[in-house]
Amino acid sequence: MKTTIQSVKGTRDFYPEEMGVRSWLYEVIKEVSSQFGYQEYDGPFLEKIDLYAAKSGEELVKEQSFVFQDRSGEDITLRPELTPTLARMVAQRQNQLVFPLRWWSFGPFWRYERPQKGRTREFFQWNIDLIGEDSPEADAELVSVCIYFFQKVGLTPDQVTILVNDRKLMDSELTRLDITPDLKRTVFRLIDRKEKMPIQDWRQYGLDSGLSETQMQGIEALLVDQDLWKKSPDLTRLFEILEAMNLRQYVRFDPQIIRGLEYYTGIVFEAKDQGREGRSILGGGHYGNLVADVGGDPLAGVGFAMGDVMAGIVLEKYGCMPKFEISPAPVMVTVFDDALLPKSFALANSLRLQGLRAAVYPSAGKLQKQFKYADRMGIRYVVVMGPDEEEVGKATIKDLASREQFTVAQAELVLELKKLLANAGAV
Amino acid sequence: MKTTIQSVKGTRDFYPEEMGVRSWLYEVIKEVSSQFGYQEYDGPFLEKIDLYAAKSGEELVKEQSFVFQDRSGEDITLRPELTPTLARMVAQRQNQLVFPLRWWSFGPFWRYERPQKGRTREFFQWNIDLIGEDSPEADAELVSVCIYFFQKVGLTPDQVTILVNDRKLMDSELTRLDITPDLKRTVFRLIDRKEKMPIQDWRQYGLDSGLSETQMQGIEALLVDQDLWKKSPDLTRLFEILEAMNLRQYVRFDPQIIRGLEYYTGIVFEAKDQGREGRSILGGGHYGNLVADVGGDPLAGVGFAMGDVMAGIVLEKYGCMPKFEISPAPVMVTVFDDALLPKSFALANSLRLQGLRAAVYPSAGKLQKQFKYADRMGIRYVVVMGPDEEEVGKATIKDLASREQFTVAQAELVLELKKLLANAGAV
Repeated sequence: MKTTIQSVKGTRDFYPEEMGVRSWLYEVIKEVSSQFGYQEYDGPFLEKIDLYAAKSGEELVKEQSFVFQDRSGEDITLRPELTPTLARMVAQRQNQLVFPLRWWSFGPFWRYERPQKGRTREFFQWNIDLIGEDSPEADAELVSVCIYFFQKVGLTPDQVTILVNDRKLMDSELTRLDITPDLKRTVFRLIDRKEKMPIQDWRQYGLDSGLSETQMQGIEALLVDQDLWKKSPDLTRLFEILEAMNLRQYVRFDPQIIRGLEYYTGIVFEAKDQGREGRSILGGGHYGNLVADVGGDPLAGVGFAMGDVMAGIVLEKYGCMPKFEISPAPVMVTVFDDALLPKSFALANSLRLQGLRAAVYPSAGKLQKQFKYADRMGIRYVVVMGPDEEEVGKATIKDLASREQFTVAQAELVLELKKLLANAGAV
Repeated sequence: MKTTIQSVKGTRDFYPEEMGVRSWLYEVIKEVSSQFGYQEYDGPFLEKIDLYAAKSGEELVKEQSFVFQDRSGEDITLRPELTPTLARMVAQRQNQLVFPLRWWSFGPFWRYERPQKGRTREFFQWNIDLIGEDSPEADAELVSVCIYFFQKVGLTPDQVTILVNDRKLMDSELTRLDITPDLKRTVFRLIDRKEKMPIQDWRQYGLDSGLSETQMQGIEALLVDQDLWKKSPDLTRLFEILEAMNLRQYVRFDPQIIRGLEYYTGIVFEAKDQGREGRSILGGGHYGNLVADVGGDPLAGVGFAMGDVMAGIVLEKYGCMPKFEISPAPVMVTVFDDALLPKSFALANSLRLQGLRAAVYPSAGKLQKQFKYADRMGIRYVVVMGPDEEEVGKATIKDLASREQFTVAQAELVLELKKLLANAGAV
């Protein structure tokens, strides 16, 4: 016997149950995004590597991207994130688009990482951006979009928190510690890694990077200063707006939040669940200039991205994932024999044309076998049409749950089925 | 000034208007598929090349696939079609799944072809399969799914035709012409190419392939024999069922339809528009054994695939593409000044929580500028809340179409807006 060919490591198969989860998540995201007046868009899934070289972090491009040469020798990347594509698309039509622009998307992304809890190499991501507005008010809107999503799926402030920080604030604090501009990027990376390594190693990493003992102490003091945000006019305004919207309880200042991507210039944020397991649920921030590197005129904005894998883990953990009905249809038309099969197919189609989802058994066979199939598929009502019934324009409805059955005129079949489904709460 | 980085050749950007088309197509496909009791699934977008080597045509794998080595040196393919993935997924759970299985999917695929009308290198495709049923009745169901789709989008039998043939019929006819089994595959390819080259070249190609003059004449006679289908029990049954379903007018026998993929063993079909421009709109057929090459037990089925590019061209051609509302929301809350901005944000959110899609202008600025923005975005109603109104719990609704405006209590704002939207037919 041959061996089954395996799937690619870090990819997932979506059987109908898993697809139900993905579709549900997409529907919630679509509803939340459109409630705020955002429009759906998408970019290609393949882009030239140059697009990322300019805008994304080095680690993302050099270590985590799937890159290959196509048959013409061009370097192609499976998109690891959407923001550079967004920048390209906006720059291409900068003179025709109306700003501020509100766009959202949900689609596949790829990163070559070690598969582990919360990480797959192929994943889906919600991206949402407000472009053409350089203000903490715009940031407040995006944070409120996150919260609206959490409320929609039933995640409470006891379960998830949005941690916010301000890169401008951190930048001026580092200046105060006499950290030179060329070292700041290193320090941001250092702060970003604090949670990911033992504290002694982290301190040594800081000293090895060229920071003095005093500077390291200053940085450590910053990272525990819960009132530091009061020095940031942007964070002050952000909190004021969220307070007025009655959403403040979801948000907390955290000076350790930096975000890895190079293009953030102001407020940055990440959502984590209280147990803080794995990666953050979503992350985003304010960028000073989206389109500069792809040839457009300066344009600020704010956006965030949420992956489906961590979101799914957190939703499962807090019991917020709905149970999915796997039944393919509420009704199945059976086939009495080969001679009547075409009439059964026609009857099923007339049910569909009148708005009912209706499967048909695709061959003649023992009725018991067909009932058993319907039952296993979660289909409650079956329609039987034998030669006697067919001759007088009738059909029998059988309820596989109650075992009751009754015969009706074919012309009234849809009406009767709709009544049964309404009573069973299954329409 | 820097140059804008270009997108990859053969890919598409989906700005909100184009995304509207894709989403609409997806919704129609979802509705049609679920009306027949099919369940949505999806596979990974990356697969190992071995998966295609066994099942797909040679041309597809060797010439048209995007293949690359990942960082671990494994040969990965961007999926060029879904059937091999379907086979892998079914084989993996063959003992748990309930057959017949009805599955559908809509997602991205990639083929490295010369971009031209009706072809892009990255495209979306509807796949739908009925698995575990080895009969022309199953084939009839899939053909009726195609037709249901055409009816749903408004394509008539005058505009599109489903051309059907039977590979078993062709096989026995070739035997009758003394064509040996090893030459049959060549002849199928020859028939498949007839429309694509001048007739003299085609005849020469046949002779060069090892066929005699008599055999070539026999083949040419077959290809114009419109009654040939009567020799096929499967086609006879197919037409009988479609007749009973009152769908026969969409279907026509065409002995030239062969389909390139290796796994088809029975009825095959393609839909073309009457002008016959470009590629077919969709294509599919019956396969005798889906899972053999990936290690499963024998399992027959039938399925088809429809690409979004040709479907879009045909829908446009016959005026079946709906016009898309690009307005992001029916209502926009304006911002009077910085001090009132948090209250405007809160007001907009309360509208959303009560079920209205509502954008908010993301900064304070001249009201005229905000009205102009709303107007350009296709947002008809704006809400204004100045300090006097705010103090007494009121707000003003302004209709940008009629220029009328009136002031209401904030508590009644949603009700009033819903009334206006219902009257304007825009809810």
